[in-house]
Amino acid sequence: MSQNTQLWIYDTTLRDGAQREGLSLSVEDKLNIARRLDDLGIPFIEGGWPGANPKDGQFFSQLQQHPLRQAEVVAFCSTRRPHMPVTEDVTLAAALAARTNWLTLFGKSWDLHVTEGLKTELNENLSMIYDSIAYLRRQGRRVIYDAEHWFDGYVSNPTYAVQTLEAALRAGAEWLVLCDTNGGMLPHQITEIVRTVGQWLATLNLKNPPQLGIHTHNDGDLAVANSLTAALEGVTMVQGTINGYGERCGNANLCSLIPNLQLKLGYNCLPAEKLATLAETSRYVSEIVNLAPNEHAPYVGLSAFAHKGGIHVSAVERNPKTYEHIEPTAVGNLRRIVISDQAGLSNVMAKARSFGLKLDRTSPTSRQLLHRLKSLEDEGYQFEAAEASFELLMREALGQRPKMFDVYGFQVHCERMPYAGSGVNCSPEDPAGSSSLATVKVSVDGKILLHAAEGNGPVEALDHALRKALERFYPELERFYLTDYKVRILDSASGTAAKTRVLVEFGDGEHRWTTVGLSPNILEASYKAVVEGLEYGLLKLRSEVKAKLVACQS
Amino acid sequence: MSQNTQLWIYDTTLRDGAQREGLSLSVEDKLNIARRLDDLGIPFIEGGWPGANPKDGQFFSQLQQHPLRQAEVVAFCSTRRPHMPVTEDVTLAAALAARTNWLTLFGKSWDLHVTEGLKTELNENLSMIYDSIAYLRRQGRRVIYDAEHWFDGYVSNPTYAVQTLEAALRAGAEWLVLCDTNGGMLPHQITEIVRTVGQWLATLNLKNPPQLGIHTHNDGDLAVANSLTAALEGVTMVQGTINGYGERCGNANLCSLIPNLQLKLGYNCLPAEKLATLAETSRYVSEIVNLAPNEHAPYVGLSAFAHKGGIHVSAVERNPKTYEHIEPTAVGNLRRIVISDQAGLSNVMAKARSFGLKLDRTSPTSRQLLHRLKSLEDEGYQFEAAEASFELLMREALGQRPKMFDVYGFQVHCERMPYAGSGVNCSPEDPAGSSSLATVKVSVDGKILLHAAEGNGPVEALDHALRKALERFYPELERFYLTDYKVRILDSASGTAAKTRVLVEFGDGEHRWTTVGLSPNILEASYKAVVEGLEYGLLKLRSEVKAKLVACQS
Repeated sequence: MSQNTQLWIYDTTLRDGAQREGLSLSVEDKLNIARRLDDLGIPFIEGGWPGANPKDGQFFSQLQQHPLRQAEVVAFCSTRRPHMPVTEDVTLAAALAARTNWLTLFGKSWDLHVTEGLKTELNENLSMIYDSIAYLRRQGRRVIYDAEHWFDGYVSNPTYAVQTLEAALRAGAEWLVLCDTNGGMLPHQITEIVRTVGQWLATLNLKNPPQLGIHTHNDGDLAVANSLTAALEGVTMVQGTINGYGERCGNANLCSLIPNLQLKLGYNCLPAEKLATLAETSRYVSEIVNLAPNEHAPYVGLSAFAHKGGIHVSAVERNPKTYEHIEPTAVGNLRRIVISDQAGLSNVMAKARSFGLKLDRTSPTSRQLLHRLKSLEDEGYQFEAAEASFELLMREALGQRPKMFDVYGFQVHCERMPYAGSGVNCSPEDPAGSSSLATVKVSVDGKILLHAAEGNGPVEALDHALRKALERFYPELERFYLTDYKVRILDSASGTAAKTRVLVEFGDGEHRWTTVGLSPNILEASYKAVVEGLEYGLLKLRSEVKAKLVACQS
Repeated sequence: MSQNTQLWIYDTTLRDGAQREGLSLSVEDKLNIARRLDDLGIPFIEGGWPGANPKDGQFFSQLQQHPLRQAEVVAFCSTRRPHMPVTEDVTLAAALAARTNWLTLFGKSWDLHVTEGLKTELNENLSMIYDSIAYLRRQGRRVIYDAEHWFDGYVSNPTYAVQTLEAALRAGAEWLVLCDTNGGMLPHQITEIVRTVGQWLATLNLKNPPQLGIHTHNDGDLAVANSLTAALEGVTMVQGTINGYGERCGNANLCSLIPNLQLKLGYNCLPAEKLATLAETSRYVSEIVNLAPNEHAPYVGLSAFAHKGGIHVSAVERNPKTYEHIEPTAVGNLRRIVISDQAGLSNVMAKARSFGLKLDRTSPTSRQLLHRLKSLEDEGYQFEAAEASFELLMREALGQRPKMFDVYGFQVHCERMPYAGSGVNCSPEDPAGSSSLATVKVSVDGKILLHAAEGNGPVEALDHALRKALERFYPELERFYLTDYKVRILDSASGTAAKTRVLVEFGDGEHRWTTVGLSPNILEASYKAVVEGLEYGLLKLRSEVKAKLVACQS
């Protein structure tokens, strides 16, 4: 149908996705997600709106020092202010300061928004679009033009809407992206309007015509369908977000859209082997933003290829096509049926390879490991974003987890208890601090160690106490620091008490690694994750040192 | 476009919806949902598959005693077994025993499923369809024929797929429902295939031709689009489920589909005043099935008409069309102004109105409140997902936060510390539990209260201790329970220690509310959020009771 046509995927998780209610990203989160999207093979990653908030500015300056491998990181910005010279516009200046090759500039297409939103004249808006893009081009930047509210604008005043695109293309925009900002369009309207724009562009007979793109929102539950239909009408850029995050009902979900485009319609979006990491990427991003993954998400959800009892299972076992629209491994997902499955083992094998561990597919160790993994996942463990814990598990099964220390127990005491007569009230305004004290009991080489320490909170106190106990044996511990900490409450299906899952990230300035702990008690879950985090850091450091020694000797 | 054409909505929440992983319904749940769907004005409600499980049989016999007011309740059943007479078929007998006017019979359309699934001959399958429907018709029942896997079947063997429909219509089926059982079709394929079927039906020149229906699944994130496209091709029955519940990625979501069909395309599906109860119905069903509602669901989600940025908010207040694709009240939803770090005075004013609080835009109180809000947000507070804390803040500024209790302090002790000599290792395998004990000091009416309690973890222990201290004064506290708990570590931009932000959600079975706490100490942040959660619940309950008393007196 459209075999081998290249489609450019443009991810806006970090900008439009972050508009989702309840989602907020630190600079570190943004960098982690950008790197993961780069690995996935996404060609354009919109990083943020520099100047609109300080975090986005920091993100771009961090990337200048440690650039991505392949992807173009794009800064987002708006047209200049009405009746102001471009050279004095602070937001355009901030966008240029991000020092990206590409900039996405958005402008108004809908006459209603020009007169009621910007409160300016229709002609001035055309100049704002033209001037801003021309200015960016003069600075040597390449420009994608996001035509905000384009479809609503076209319905309201088609002549004016087309004039806005014309201003953008005359000024040198290389892509004109038609946006359904309010998300209310239906697929047949998209088809008709995109077709009209394509025909108009053809009549201009340009030597280097701009290409078209599509940006949809999901207010009618049609964002994926609307983007697909635009692709079938010939747009070459598709914008969306991982897991469909975005304002209100979200943006077009790239985790649905990419497989539809590539597996069903034959477009080239990502290398096939990268598409096979899509489910993992989806889960990784949901962990970073700390939102429970949608288990029923098409293609990438845990339940997307789950078969409930009886007829379905036996039919699927005879021929998966009977109840599956695609092969789940194509997007890195798994068929889930009761019996132990090859796909799970393949994942474990792939993981082992990535850790540099040798695992024999046919050995009982592999089967045991898979079994252990599945039972931990049933308990609520999740290793998607906690690879360090997973590697420790694998090393243990292989007898390659040397014992650094034994853990016996811990005790935590936190207090904020001013004398009642003092009249001090424990309100947010109260500057008096609380105290946190932790005691840990560990052993190294059979020697029992009991150490106590204070901290800014109980987790820090536990971390400090552990270091205090272990530093005499492992002085390199001082190189590790706690960089992130995430908590999620899991509903227990079996009606027992809710469990807490804690993810802890450590760093040593060069690498970062994440471990997981699970318990009904948040402090115990944190303790488990911190213990594994320190252990993993030591293990890695020692094997690195060892590798260097071996390298010197040979 | 299709103004005033009647479309028959067919709900299968109770049968296909219940296939969703993690969803299970009691007979009482099913009756509650059926009555609610009847109230909504859904004309066809598929109640279950009698004979397939005992619950469904009970459901139908209960309904015989207490019938619905308007809706047709439909029993679902399969074709007779291969090479067996219809009169001896137990599932057909069970379906007839449900004593409904209408029965939905499903049969195989895909040659692959006949030979590999049923393991019978293609001709025998045609007889199974014909015989089963003819038998039900002879018993005086009306029949809807669900053509399972119809689209995949048509792609595989169009001639045979059409023969299965022919068998059904010759036997007297009044509706032929084309099913995309695996959920993998794309909208343009649906258009093309439904059109072909319509043309084929027209060539038959029947006096009473059967009507066409559509049944889609969401494996490609396209169930709503696929149903819409079929409606545009002239099908008159649309099947789906409330909230899109269903196996794998779910069925077509009626909460998106009905508003699209009725508000955007002008079909008659429900009376307009019933459509205005759709959001409430969606939430009701999610409460009954005990699944957290999707807050980002199109049309009916809590965030579907939520506005974040300052520019958006002021534009929406001037003209809602600028950022809303429909009027939210049309589906019984509300515009919501989200409090975030992009908040301006417009947001605060809009929020006050939604809390029912009077705030004068020009008063110093408004300015002070905005100032306070921004400084709390700079500290790391986030009110976007913690509206209850925000309302308390606003009430305090307005002098409308009556003092329920004073908080002095807390103490928490957690321990897992087996005797060192026991050799017990605190690993994930260790079944021995840890202990958590909390003490709180609060005062009510100047009386100091010191209470201690245990819990499954420190936060539960704090919650228990607070309740123990306050329950004598506020017995209604027992109605509130902790429903969710989220933790986030904020990066320390200013170089001070990292802060912990805790969101706590409480519920009372009817409402849910969220509060926020912030501190470097996770337990203190949790404590603050829990304290505000209890306070807010009490405040709300008291003002409700007061409102009722006022209503009775007047």
